[in-house]
Amino acid sequence: MKLTISGAFVLAKCTAEESRVPLPEGSVSPRAQSLPAASHIVPQSDPRHACFFHIRRYGSAPGHSRVVKDRRFAELKDVDIAHFRQILGDKGVVVDSDELKVANTDWMNKYEGHSQLLLRPRTTQQVSEILQYCYAGRLAVVPQGGNTGLVGGSVPVFDEVILNLGAMNKILNFDEASGILVCEAGCILESLDNYVGSRGYVMPLDLGAKGSCQIGGNVSTNAGGLRLLRYGSLHGNVLGLEVVLADGTVLDLLGTLRKDNTGYDLKQLFIGGEGTLGVVTKVSIITPPKLASTNVAFLACEDYVSCQKTFAQAKLQLGEILSAFEFLDRYALDVVLKHLDGTRDPLPDSKQHFYLLVETTGSNQLHDKEKLDAFLESAIEQGLITDGAVAQDISQAASFWKVREGVAEAMGKGGAVYKYDLSIPLKDLYTLVEDMRSRLKDSATVVGYGHMGDGNLHLNIMAPKYDNELLAQIEPYVYEWTAAAKGSISAEHGLGFMKAKAIHYSKSTAAVQVMEGFKKLLDPRGILNPYKVLPSPSESHVISEAT
Amino acid sequence: MKLTISGAFVLAKCTAEESRVPLPEGSVSPRAQSLPAASHIVPQSDPRHACFFHIRRYGSAPGHSRVVKDRRFAELKDVDIAHFRQILGDKGVVVDSDELKVANTDWMNKYEGHSQLLLRPRTTQQVSEILQYCYAGRLAVVPQGGNTGLVGGSVPVFDEVILNLGAMNKILNFDEASGILVCEAGCILESLDNYVGSRGYVMPLDLGAKGSCQIGGNVSTNAGGLRLLRYGSLHGNVLGLEVVLADGTVLDLLGTLRKDNTGYDLKQLFIGGEGTLGVVTKVSIITPPKLASTNVAFLACEDYVSCQKTFAQAKLQLGEILSAFEFLDRYALDVVLKHLDGTRDPLPDSKQHFYLLVETTGSNQLHDKEKLDAFLESAIEQGLITDGAVAQDISQAASFWKVREGVAEAMGKGGAVYKYDLSIPLKDLYTLVEDMRSRLKDSATVVGYGHMGDGNLHLNIMAPKYDNELLAQIEPYVYEWTAAAKGSISAEHGLGFMKAKAIHYSKSTAAVQVMEGFKKLLDPRGILNPYKVLPSPSESHVISEAT
Repeated sequence: MKLTISGAFVLAKCTAEESRVPLPEGSVSPRAQSLPAASHIVPQSDPRHACFFHIRRYGSAPGHSRVVKDRRFAELKDVDIAHFRQILGDKGVVVDSDELKVANTDWMNKYEGHSQLLLRPRTTQQVSEILQYCYAGRLAVVPQGGNTGLVGGSVPVFDEVILNLGAMNKILNFDEASGILVCEAGCILESLDNYVGSRGYVMPLDLGAKGSCQIGGNVSTNAGGLRLLRYGSLHGNVLGLEVVLADGTVLDLLGTLRKDNTGYDLKQLFIGGEGTLGVVTKVSIITPPKLASTNVAFLACEDYVSCQKTFAQAKLQLGEILSAFEFLDRYALDVVLKHLDGTRDPLPDSKQHFYLLVETTGSNQLHDKEKLDAFLESAIEQGLITDGAVAQDISQAASFWKVREGVAEAMGKGGAVYKYDLSIPLKDLYTLVEDMRSRLKDSATVVGYGHMGDGNLHLNIMAPKYDNELLAQIEPYVYEWTAAAKGSISAEHGLGFMKAKAIHYSKSTAAVQVMEGFKKLLDPRGILNPYKVLPSPSESHVISEAT
Repeated sequence: MKLTISGAFVLAKCTAEESRVPLPEGSVSPRAQSLPAASHIVPQSDPRHACFFHIRRYGSAPGHSRVVKDRRFAELKDVDIAHFRQILGDKGVVVDSDELKVANTDWMNKYEGHSQLLLRPRTTQQVSEILQYCYAGRLAVVPQGGNTGLVGGSVPVFDEVILNLGAMNKILNFDEASGILVCEAGCILESLDNYVGSRGYVMPLDLGAKGSCQIGGNVSTNAGGLRLLRYGSLHGNVLGLEVVLADGTVLDLLGTLRKDNTGYDLKQLFIGGEGTLGVVTKVSIITPPKLASTNVAFLACEDYVSCQKTFAQAKLQLGEILSAFEFLDRYALDVVLKHLDGTRDPLPDSKQHFYLLVETTGSNQLHDKEKLDAFLESAIEQGLITDGAVAQDISQAASFWKVREGVAEAMGKGGAVYKYDLSIPLKDLYTLVEDMRSRLKDSATVVGYGHMGDGNLHLNIMAPKYDNELLAQIEPYVYEWTAAAKGSISAEHGLGFMKAKAIHYSKSTAAVQVMEGFKKLLDPRGILNPYKVLPSPSESHVISEAT
């Protein structure tokens, strides 16, 4: 992969003038307010034309950068709002400032837009009419589902009209013979899981945010989550989509077939398209059968090579019942045990460098237990693992999971933390952690954990406080390293607004050009979710200084 | 889905003048020569500008139709051949007529092109240089892998240059920890399966043609096959591709990551793109672990509803070990037993209407046998199946499979046969067979079988001889019926040349327009595999008569 680093990646600072602009009330999140002034979101006097600065503490942002509002877009007028009332009725048109404030902000309070209007269509036809109108009048639009994303993809950057799909939440069909579900985009993931669960099936994806996130958003961000190792990605599980294009054209790709080889598989582009190519309005998805038996084991390994070999062994011996293979290093375990109340070391007598959480899911408890026992015995015999514990009940299984899942929360309690969500080929996955540790020496604690079964590393760097010098040691090194290893700078969260400018670290110039071509073809006026995924034309206005 | 039927679907007959044109030696296959004159491939005097007629007996062709050579394309000249020799050396440039004859013809002898040149690149760079030259000079190109397709997608229609990928057959990397394989497009599927098999993995797809078909062709046609029920489609298993675009641009999408959410997933368009959007040169694919235990059961059901219920039960009770769920009706079984030597009825005492072949694959023979026995017991108790047999050894398992796999071959021995490969939602799958049986009454034997687990029906209609009146009873009825049921007119074979004009039966006009936009964006001069997948511009020249 050719590594192209544009000027957009270098550091940019607030100018003196910008930093003097008073902050409108509520424009900065409580978390942001606790940070040094240089890290603030600093709007200009008219927030709808704001210069917009990233806060670095969440990591993965390639650098402070400024995005200028695209002047091709129209300003919202009263006549527009009146037109939308005609389409949706009063209930579907939200101009209330409190409601807008919530919809303008992501759940981490990291990004905040300044939209004056939120629309709640209830039918595809209404979505089509809204977009047809916006397209004709060049009104920019941000599609929004549960707004649980981590990269600022579902909130406005400036004053884009928010198109919230939450009212389109009907289940349209479920075929109990095939497990194929067809539903509207606004259905909550957990509701769907409950619905198919009571009929003997499970959704093929599961996320921490399942109580709020919507299936249309899951599809649009190609959400990964906890079941990917077992059931694969949405590119394999989504059978069909209904999508409304920027100009209001309804694209019916809502097949319910496992096999359909009639022309290019267009729906795939909207899976992970992050709402920039079209608005997903309906989803057809295959759900696997719900199985009765689950086991969880917590294992200790001396080195990362042993972790890899244990994974290979697990795939061979646990084969069809393996459902999760997670890892964390000693540093991560220590952080959890130190900062997170109610956690305890599953293997208190074992002080190793690496820990694994292995989960099985199958249809026969006795069989699964036998397989797991045999796997553990052979892993110990071969010296792959030095110690291990198998959860004896649901509560113990939950406590094992809490150690692994608690790392993210615990990291936040130890001071400043720089977080990176990366995909790296398995053999190199931990080398980045080691290299970063050597590079930073005593200035920070470098922690590695993640979904080893998916090659997904969560690299966390903990320091007493946020520090630009430390940051310059981390970035762009972490992106360059990931790119050189043919990794991905976004494993499961998408690019959104946060990483749009960093796409070149993971995709070649030729590939980005093809993406730009597709964007232009499907949305020639660029009204759908502007400033996201691809470096926007206004990136040329970024004020940057050499590092 | 909106059903749009264009004029291209109506029947066209040879005109008197055309039927008088003498056939150049070798231009008609031995099989075609045994057919009535109206079904022949009838080239014009210059075969490179031939008027081209489908032979209907293989079915799924929407109607006889004529395609006119696209006049934008250049004629091949000696100077072109000299240039290709410079790129490839003498060995990579084939002009020998015997070798060309083989490459110009598909393996069923159904389609025959008139290419004067076959090129055998050994590197991506050479593919790029070839396409750059062809693009500049407007020479049309047909990419070719193992040439095992069933819809005329890999042979020239006129005199397109054949770009054969067979010499690009190196395995580039295999990660034994993750099971991720990276190889060149020309690798034979069976060779890859042997290679990963000796390392404890299997390829996630398996086809009858595995001894000849190439992974690049598998990807380009989104091949389905026998393992799809278990491991899903190539859209989920292919992790990355290297593709050369029409103008020679090399698109490096060759990731080796389970998770990568950085921009639009471009590779998906080339999976099933049938070589019309770019030439696949390298493939990265995830391979699942090879499991030790396989069981095969042959079951009898009274009606199709019971088949559906048995499938749901199998998914629940066999869950993680279910690897195939195939069905055939009594008519199919009778045809096999009558026409195929060496087959015998696995359930001779049971004269039922439907039969199922259920296969399990798991890591523990004892466990799998227990699960299968429990499933069979409960299926009998619930009255879902009336009889069943479990293979006691490999030889018996093979004999059960032979009954199911032998239907296609046996059908060919009973006279004329019209064959349709369709995807239909499970609940309606067999209704088409019954409707067709009522419609045709005594004029034909209507047989249904296929990959029930994937919703893939093989509808075969057997008659004493090919007959246009019978055909008019079948088509376009079968396509209209499939479209109305939201099915697909091509489950796993692609559209190729055979069904390009029928795409509207399965895809909406808006979707086809987007596909045409993608084609134009990636191949503005249309040199890559012309006349395939999408209705070509020259379709407007089709001479058609009303049915």
